[in-house]
Amino acid sequence: MERDSSEITALVEMLSKLPGLGPRSARRLALHLVNRRTQVLVPLADLLTRVSENVRECGICGNFCIGEICGICLSGDRATNTICVVQNVADLWAMERGGDYRGRYHVLGGLLSYLDGVGPENLRIPELIERVRTESITEAILALSATVDGQTTVHYIAEKLMEAGVSVTTLGQGVPIGGELDYLDDGTISAALKSRKNY
Amino acid sequence: MERDSSEITALVEMLSKLPGLGPRSARRLALHLVNRRTQVLVPLADLLTRVSENVRECGICGNFCIGEICGICLSGDRATNTICVVQNVADLWAMERGGDYRGRYHVLGGLLSYLDGVGPENLRIPELIERVRTESITEAILALSATVDGQTTVHYIAEKLMEAGVSVTTLGQGVPIGGELDYLDDGTISAALKSRKNY
Repeated sequence: MERDSSEITALVEMLSKLPGLGPRSARRLALHLVNRRTQVLVPLADLLTRVSENVRECGICGNFCIGEICGICLSGDRATNTICVVQNVADLWAMERGGDYRGRYHVLGGLLSYLDGVGPENLRIPELIERVRTESITEAILALSATVDGQTTVHYIAEKLMEAGVSVTTLGQGVPIGGELDYLDDGTISAALKSRKNY
Repeated sequence: MERDSSEITALVEMLSKLPGLGPRSARRLALHLVNRRTQVLVPLADLLTRVSENVRECGICGNFCIGEICGICLSGDRATNTICVVQNVADLWAMERGGDYRGRYHVLGGLLSYLDGVGPENLRIPELIERVRTESITEAILALSATVDGQTTVHYIAEKLMEAGVSVTTLGQGVPIGGELDYLDDGTISAALKSRKNY
């Protein structure tokens, strides 16, 4: 690339490492930003600085928020006896987009993984057990991925929570809405068959 | 989206308006940034601020650079008698990636367009004519798009430059490297046939 504009080169390089961007889209994005200095570049730089200074993890559930406690934990409109356990904030957002769940959350910050050396103490599992003991929680929905690590985590947490006298549920498995049988893997079809319902 | 984290919501919205990003990839990117505050978010915010403060247009050719004059115009290694006229900095970068061109550039900042009301005075065309008069330029390569506006601009500039006694060339047209005839439009095949060479 042309000499002497090392900061643009550095910007292209940094952008190209972000998820969903490659060298080509990073170049396009960098030029878009530099061409629209006042409309896009400066506001984006300011907002990123504000986010880096203000956004914190909620002290109760682990969601991202401004201040100590997030809006979901503070809300009086949401059921306090139900807790939905999710892997990360992306999954919390996905649940919220669904719009059906009106309880609270607990973000684990990952999944148990013996291969990667992630144990219960590396996740927010002790905090979850503490919450179940001190808050008046009656049901815990384990909304974790249907992967090996996800199911290992479900197994471990379910045992601990049932010891504490909480009713534990997991998400239903089956054919996704709009899904075509022909394109589904065998595991999903088998799970859908097991959880078949009367019509 | 969850209440109370208005700055993350604003970030997702701003990112989703950037070229190449949609709502889904913007959400993913925002979480990636917030999850990697010190490694990615803070460096990116700082770099964007530095770029917005330091990157300027080169006073001679219109390339982006730090300081008054860009590295290409300052370089002693590049031919001063050849000038390559491009639409924007993205096209200048594309020419530089090719690596074959060792002269200087002139960035127009757009193309003539009667529909959009873009005339010669809205582009850096007067500056180009001034450069051709004052610098010892013998050849001008018009590397503009093969579109209606591109060819209108080529026509206008070529006339002006030939009046100033400069030899004017345009990029060769034909089958792109790796191109399959079956997928090429008729115009390209016809242009390739007109510019056929002895084997």
